Amino acid sequence: MNFPSKVLEKAVDEIAGLPGIGRKSAMRLALYLLKQPNSQGIALGNAIQELVKEIKYCKICHNFSDQELCEICADPKRNDALLCVVEDVRDVMAIENTGQYRGKYLVLGGKLSPMEGIGPDQLRIESLENKIAQGNVKEVIFALSATMEGDTTVYYLYKRLKKYPLIFSVIARGIAVGDELEYVDEISLGRSINNRQPYHE
Amino acid sequence: MNFPSKVLEKAVDEIAGLPGIGRKSAMRLALYLLKQPNSQGIALGNAIQELVKEIKYCKICHNFSDQELCEICADPKRNDALLCVVEDVRDVMAIENTGQYRGKYLVLGGKLSPMEGIGPDQLRIESLENKIAQGNVKEVIFALSATMEGDTTVYYLYKRLKKYPLIFSVIARGIAVGDELEYVDEISLGRSINNRQPYHE
Repeated sequence: MNFPSKVLEKAVDEIAGLPGIGRKSAMRLALYLLKQPNSQGIALGNAIQELVKEIKYCKICHNFSDQELCEICADPKRNDALLCVVEDVRDVMAIENTGQYRGKYLVLGGKLSPMEGIGPDQLRIESLENKIAQGNVKEVIFALSATMEGDTTVYYLYKRLKKYPLIFSVIARGIAVGDELEYVDEISLGRSINNRQPYHE
Repeated sequence: MNFPSKVLEKAVDEIAGLPGIGRKSAMRLALYLLKQPNSQGIALGNAIQELVKEIKYCKICHNFSDQELCEICADPKRNDALLCVVEDVRDVMAIENTGQYRGKYLVLGGKLSPMEGIGPDQLRIESLENKIAQGNVKEVIFALSATMEGDTTVYYLYKRLKKYPLIFSVIARGIAVGDELEYVDEISLGRSINNRQPYHE
């Protein structure tokens, strides 16, 4: 592409460096910003720079935070006996949005994936063991992806942690709210039959 | 969404302010930036801010530019007798990329669209007339969208400019390179038969 302006070319190059945004989309976004008041582009630029410069990671659970400890770890009302192990910060946010969980978290930072070269050393397993060794945790809840890699990670963690006197649980799998049975894959449907629950009025 | 961090929330809000990017995509982009070296986010923020602060518009053709005049208007080798009227800066870039045109441009800034409230006053028609009134232009080439609004705009411009002793032309319409006839819409195919061209060896 021949760009009429160097600053435009630079901006398009940088925007197109984001995943899932090609050069045509980047151009469209740059032209959109140029049609808005300058303040929008300046605010966007500032917000991105502050994000990468100022974000911290909670030193206990590795969630994002503005302080040394995240709001959840710092909250004395949260139940220290429950520890929910998740892959990613987005999973913490997703579970928090349900409003159903009052324990604490540990963000692993991924799942075991030999294909992508992610072994136990790339995950925050030491941090998980340290947290458990302190003795407050009574139950570890594995809330990882329902994929082969997620299952492998759960199995690995279980083998490594079973020496501790803990309850281990995984989040329930089955058919989702709104699912029609004929469209549910057979593995999920099979599991939901095997894991059937008592019916409550 | 409950965000674990204010700077993250701010960044997601700003990124989601871009067209076609929802809050989930914005979150994905923010997390991507946090996984990269800080320098990428800082460079992206700078490029966006420089774009909106420093870009100029060529005072003759209204293309983007880093100077008062764009490279095309400032180039003495370009043919002043040909003036190509386009809607948008992207159209200039598209035509320049063909390498087939050595004249000058005028960027209208849109096309007439009563539905969107865009009338002649919102377009740079005065600027177009001033350029023509200087007397160098011999041919005006309309290179607008092949849509009803594009055609209406061409018709309006023609009515307004026909008092000048100019050649008026529109870019050719027909079947595109690679088209198979059975899939071409009938209007394009009909036009391509009516506008058939002598066959050259």
